[in-house]
Amino acid sequence: MSRVLVALGGNALEPAHGAGTWAEATTEMRRTAKSLAAVVAEGHELVLTHGNGPQVGNLLREAELAAREVPMPPMYVAGAESEGEIGFLIAQELSSALRRAGVPRAVVPVISRTEVDRRDPAFRNPSKPVGRFYSAAEARTLVRERGWVLRPDPHRGGWRRVVPSPLPRRWLEGSAVRAALDAGLADRCVFVVAGGGGIPVARNGSGGWTGVDAVIDKDRGAALVGRQLRCDSLVIVTDVPGAAVGFGTPRQRWLGVVSVRELQRYLDAGEFAAGSMRPKVEAVLDFVRAGGRRAVITDVGSLRRGIRGEAGTRVPSPRVRSPRLPTGGASRRR
Amino acid sequence: MSRVLVALGGNALEPAHGAGTWAEATTEMRRTAKSLAAVVAEGHELVLTHGNGPQVGNLLREAELAAREVPMPPMYVAGAESEGEIGFLIAQELSSALRRAGVPRAVVPVISRTEVDRRDPAFRNPSKPVGRFYSAAEARTLVRERGWVLRPDPHRGGWRRVVPSPLPRRWLEGSAVRAALDAGLADRCVFVVAGGGGIPVARNGSGGWTGVDAVIDKDRGAALVGRQLRCDSLVIVTDVPGAAVGFGTPRQRWLGVVSVRELQRYLDAGEFAAGSMRPKVEAVLDFVRAGGRRAVITDVGSLRRGIRGEAGTRVPSPRVRSPRLPTGGASRRR
Repeated sequence: MSRVLVALGGNALEPAHGAGTWAEATTEMRRTAKSLAAVVAEGHELVLTHGNGPQVGNLLREAELAAREVPMPPMYVAGAESEGEIGFLIAQELSSALRRAGVPRAVVPVISRTEVDRRDPAFRNPSKPVGRFYSAAEARTLVRERGWVLRPDPHRGGWRRVVPSPLPRRWLEGSAVRAALDAGLADRCVFVVAGGGGIPVARNGSGGWTGVDAVIDKDRGAALVGRQLRCDSLVIVTDVPGAAVGFGTPRQRWLGVVSVRELQRYLDAGEFAAGSMRPKVEAVLDFVRAGGRRAVITDVGSLRRGIRGEAGTRVPSPRVRSPRLPTGGASRRR
Repeated sequence: MSRVLVALGGNALEPAHGAGTWAEATTEMRRTAKSLAAVVAEGHELVLTHGNGPQVGNLLREAELAAREVPMPPMYVAGAESEGEIGFLIAQELSSALRRAGVPRAVVPVISRTEVDRRDPAFRNPSKPVGRFYSAAEARTLVRERGWVLRPDPHRGGWRRVVPSPLPRRWLEGSAVRAALDAGLADRCVFVVAGGGGIPVARNGSGGWTGVDAVIDKDRGAALVGRQLRCDSLVIVTDVPGAAVGFGTPRQRWLGVVSVRELQRYLDAGEFAAGSMRPKVEAVLDFVRAGGRRAVITDVGSLRRGIRGEAGTRVPSPRVRSPRLPTGGASRRR
């Protein structure tokens, strides 16, 4: 038995080329839920986190299209709404799947906030495009009226808002959820936390928190959650069977078991695409270097085998492997 | 020390005649958070629930206005999104207020589902208007294409969708949250639960849950949460200082301490307006009859005094008052 954090992204939440309907998302999640329930049935403590890119995109488009009639909330509010929407979707399908698998649990989605640092260099270089496409004239108005930063999109010929993507520093509800797990709640609950990496907030002058219009990378957020909950394993679920070197070239090779050192070398050599496999690899390295026992990148279908160490790109902790440290008794609660 | 459930509605979440902006909601919530923090500082275990009517209204209007570009999700998804949005709003302001009051706590909003029964008579008589106003021609299209029920609005001259308002039967995450509180989490957390009475779901044929387009009365939902968490007190926070008989007439009289029997008599006599004070009174009666020690209806400014038994309409448990039952040792955990 071990504590496993599964980070759901891409096809685990909705189909890649669908129309974006709720019915599609439900069908897709039902399939994912079956794999997740099997993990619980094998005796693991399961915690979930998830991405929210397409959902926030839809919420922002809705809010912009309705802005003449309904006051448009700040972008970070769409993050909060997406945590509600996706948390509900997961709860609906996973609670049923768990019961069918003979391991009934309450599925408890927690609205999560994640602290970012205003001094993060990402704030000087907003790079993540969000929301609708605008004409050059509309873009000028938005810069003036809302203070947005917009950039032309070279491929699709319009202008889009760009926001920073700072590193997540601390998941604010983490200590409470960890206390709940450590108090034995894991036997009756599956927590769903820090969707989309958590709603980005920054300290304000009066000792409180202010929402920040930004995109936290959900994989980096997952590594943070894994550290704060002291998970044994982090499994990043994506659309492909693992990380590959030479991806999309004739020399493409999927990585199986790979050491931190080797994976870092591939990362430094630019093997992994920014905004795609790169943040997953960074998250995996971050997690195992901070004490996680192992991290896996795999697809939904291989989730269970990935956790067993039989599929996906598997990165063991450098500590467990070191001859100077005991390997047998690696404690579950570091 | 006692476990107190506070149900926030109306002005506690946003101003009555504002424009519906996020900035307004933040300011209003900041004021409410100060009163809530004072309750924690007095040593009570605080749990929160809240309404979501205006927020769901805005989300539905946004979704309808954007429907040509973004597939419109079912209404119950807007309920989930509103739980995310309002949970985040509460967490932001309350976590700061708690720290300033010297009682730092994690504020943990839980996305909550509430079971309703398809055989509830409310499903035969949809009565709650939701979303936008439509012309008669649009209404006919919506009946045909979406299977909605629409009714003409006698005052504003358009057609609106109506949905059922069934009784909440069971809050699905309740046992997990109660286990967390009983394990001592209340010393470090304030849970925010079952916003809008919880997202309505009903059992489906395959042993799972299906979302239902309905409106659960948030006060009846609060009574259910209070029972499931075995709260000592339920405080319904609204825009007026309490319940009144002869409301809006020359004989208007605010009710202070009032017995279950007397309050039931006023309810039966039609003293309380449907959709307004009536469900609050029903919730209060429901809660104390099921074993709650007392229930209070009051406004934000009187919250602390209401919990002390010094303000608002206060309804003590009929059991505690009965001479046949011990009164002094009424246990905190019934």
